[in-house]
Amino acid sequence: MPVNIAPLDPAALLPIAGVEIGIASAGIKKVGRKDTTLFRIAPGARVAGVFTLNRFCAAPVRLCQNNLQEYLSTGQSIRALVINTGNANAGTGVDGMQRAQAICAATAEQLGIASNQVLPFSTGVILEPLPADKIIGALPAAKADFSATNWAEAASSIMTTDIVPKASSTQIQIGGKTVTVTGIAKGSGMIHPNMATMLGYVATDAAISQPLLQQMLKYAADHSFNSITVDGDTSTNDSFILIATGLAGNDEIVDANSADFAALQGAVLQVSQFLAQAIVRDGEGATKFITINVEGGASYDECKAVGYAIGRSPLVKTAFFASDPNLGRILAAIGYAGINDLDVDNIEVRLDDVLVAINGGRNPEYREEQGQAVMNKAEIAINIKLNRGEHKATVWSCDFSYDYVKINAEYRS
Amino acid sequence: MPVNIAPLDPAALLPIAGVEIGIASAGIKKVGRKDTTLFRIAPGARVAGVFTLNRFCAAPVRLCQNNLQEYLSTGQSIRALVINTGNANAGTGVDGMQRAQAICAATAEQLGIASNQVLPFSTGVILEPLPADKIIGALPAAKADFSATNWAEAASSIMTTDIVPKASSTQIQIGGKTVTVTGIAKGSGMIHPNMATMLGYVATDAAISQPLLQQMLKYAADHSFNSITVDGDTSTNDSFILIATGLAGNDEIVDANSADFAALQGAVLQVSQFLAQAIVRDGEGATKFITINVEGGASYDECKAVGYAIGRSPLVKTAFFASDPNLGRILAAIGYAGINDLDVDNIEVRLDDVLVAINGGRNPEYREEQGQAVMNKAEIAINIKLNRGEHKATVWSCDFSYDYVKINAEYRS
Repeated sequence: MPVNIAPLDPAALLPIAGVEIGIASAGIKKVGRKDTTLFRIAPGARVAGVFTLNRFCAAPVRLCQNNLQEYLSTGQSIRALVINTGNANAGTGVDGMQRAQAICAATAEQLGIASNQVLPFSTGVILEPLPADKIIGALPAAKADFSATNWAEAASSIMTTDIVPKASSTQIQIGGKTVTVTGIAKGSGMIHPNMATMLGYVATDAAISQPLLQQMLKYAADHSFNSITVDGDTSTNDSFILIATGLAGNDEIVDANSADFAALQGAVLQVSQFLAQAIVRDGEGATKFITINVEGGASYDECKAVGYAIGRSPLVKTAFFASDPNLGRILAAIGYAGINDLDVDNIEVRLDDVLVAINGGRNPEYREEQGQAVMNKAEIAINIKLNRGEHKATVWSCDFSYDYVKINAEYRS
Repeated sequence: MPVNIAPLDPAALLPIAGVEIGIASAGIKKVGRKDTTLFRIAPGARVAGVFTLNRFCAAPVRLCQNNLQEYLSTGQSIRALVINTGNANAGTGVDGMQRAQAICAATAEQLGIASNQVLPFSTGVILEPLPADKIIGALPAAKADFSATNWAEAASSIMTTDIVPKASSTQIQIGGKTVTVTGIAKGSGMIHPNMATMLGYVATDAAISQPLLQQMLKYAADHSFNSITVDGDTSTNDSFILIATGLAGNDEIVDANSADFAALQGAVLQVSQFLAQAIVRDGEGATKFITINVEGGASYDECKAVGYAIGRSPLVKTAFFASDPNLGRILAAIGYAGINDLDVDNIEVRLDDVLVAINGGRNPEYREEQGQAVMNKAEIAINIKLNRGEHKATVWSCDFSYDYVKINAEYRS
């Protein structure tokens, strides 16, 4: 079961002015399963996206990138998102691209907009043909379902191996106006994002310029979805979209150094980190939630490399599953993280507050019972000081259990 | 159980003139377990080694590197190897180095040689103090056990989570003389070598110059131990040693372009590859042996990167465990292997001889039953053509099963 995720309260998810969501069942994998989600976005909203760097990125990812590029060059708004679960439309070649285009065209026709104003997203099994006709057939029902309060239903309808839906809202004041940020995400396996995670959608009614929206998205992605790992596999379909409808009434944010920008960035980051951490808490087979704080690095990147080396190590993850303080495995992972001039004698490793390793070896005061007491918990921090600089980074991971193997061995059955 | 490893036949392991081996029990983890192995090497033998690049490399690894450096600068032969299992003496700081030095000094005293003529090796749990006194206490018994025919016993005594001992011999003719190559290795988990694997020792009686021995070792390591993965974790203790006693009577090999060099290199590679593959076949929890052939690359390194991306992917490995031809996961791994200008439309992926993917998508002729038939086998090849150059590489891996989690969750209990 997921690690410490409170059940989703639909009433706590605040609508975003200018965003409507409709859900329908296309019967992609199972008859009756709600698997198709349609977002309608008000004219004039600004949209930014980051996507997987996987070279086998899916057809919808390439089409999203194309349509966002056309939006940036023509100023013609993005007006819709169409999302299906059950099939990733990845590894599908020219035929897969044609099917993604057909879905965009049908969505455009339904909503009376242009085809390149639609961003398509798919998630599910790779290398199998997308049943585009079924999805197109479900669009009228999705349109009929449009509502500003469908965020919780959308969070459920985009799930694959996720056990729980993931959504979050927050509100802040900007220039005397209430600004709302609401987001949903899905993901549980094939999680080792590279510029973005599986699927994440965050919307706000704030008014903000396009360049600052893009900057905010990149920052939020790096410090949320790009700071998690479940199994070290980077997906073909990772996409993270930030929408700003501009209907909150605040003066448009145009200065990256302004307090308004900082406030909105904080709110977007809060929602994004909640969603990213929820993906880890719901990581396939997860029984523990592990926060890896790396500080004292010479750069942000090297801190993150150390965090990811630990966070993706099967040996570290199985030891945490067993609640076994076999902490030498953490040292081994630090050692192969790729910092070639790392002086291991300067490193401090703590499990929560317990000092485990110092001076290149075990802390003489460390007692196994101390490590055991921390390992028995469901939420554990690994705190590392590299003592070679001023930078820091945090990575979130989970343990590796029998159920991870079970889930992925039986994924298609 | 290991995948297709014939039981070790001690009689098939040929002695190497100039190498004697003795085994004893120091009681490091269990009373009576043979855990200490001593090699005595004849004067004048040449020795070369490659070691882990892990920055948290163990004290014995650093001492090996130091003593090999002194040997190269002074010409004073390496005369002994001392190996313990049950404790890695890694993450042990200054104290760990002192204990490794104490073992070398005691070994030197037993054999009437200098301390820096001894190479020490440790394997087992990290971050715990090495019981050096116990090992030192077992040295007289190991010395009393010296024999040229103890290779099989040595292969057993260096094991940790290995289920089966790993050893191989071969003979070739060089200049009318019979030259023998015999080797042993251990390893099963924490296997993702970076310049060398857990522990591998290969000896030959051939006469060969020191620079060519070093070159041969590097080549053999790259194409054997540095081409395997079990779990993606690079060990703190990886070491691979090649010994040439020079007692076969052949003219010393001094030309890297000679037929003699090629013949000996072939024999060393054959033994090294057998051992490296045996580590994968005995990979923790392994039920399948997977050979990943990548050809048509722009460089050897990029072919290897693709092979390793597939070979270490938990998603690929769990699908193979389940015999599920969920082959999109292979495409995803190719896509995130780090080749930024990879054109996925040019890639061909075959499972054994079955063409699965072409033109960036699934082969239209491919039928699930074909993939299923291959996946049901215990030995499977993934054959990839990148179609962008003339280079190729092979990586060996295994699947990822419940037993991997079990073995590593219970490792210290």
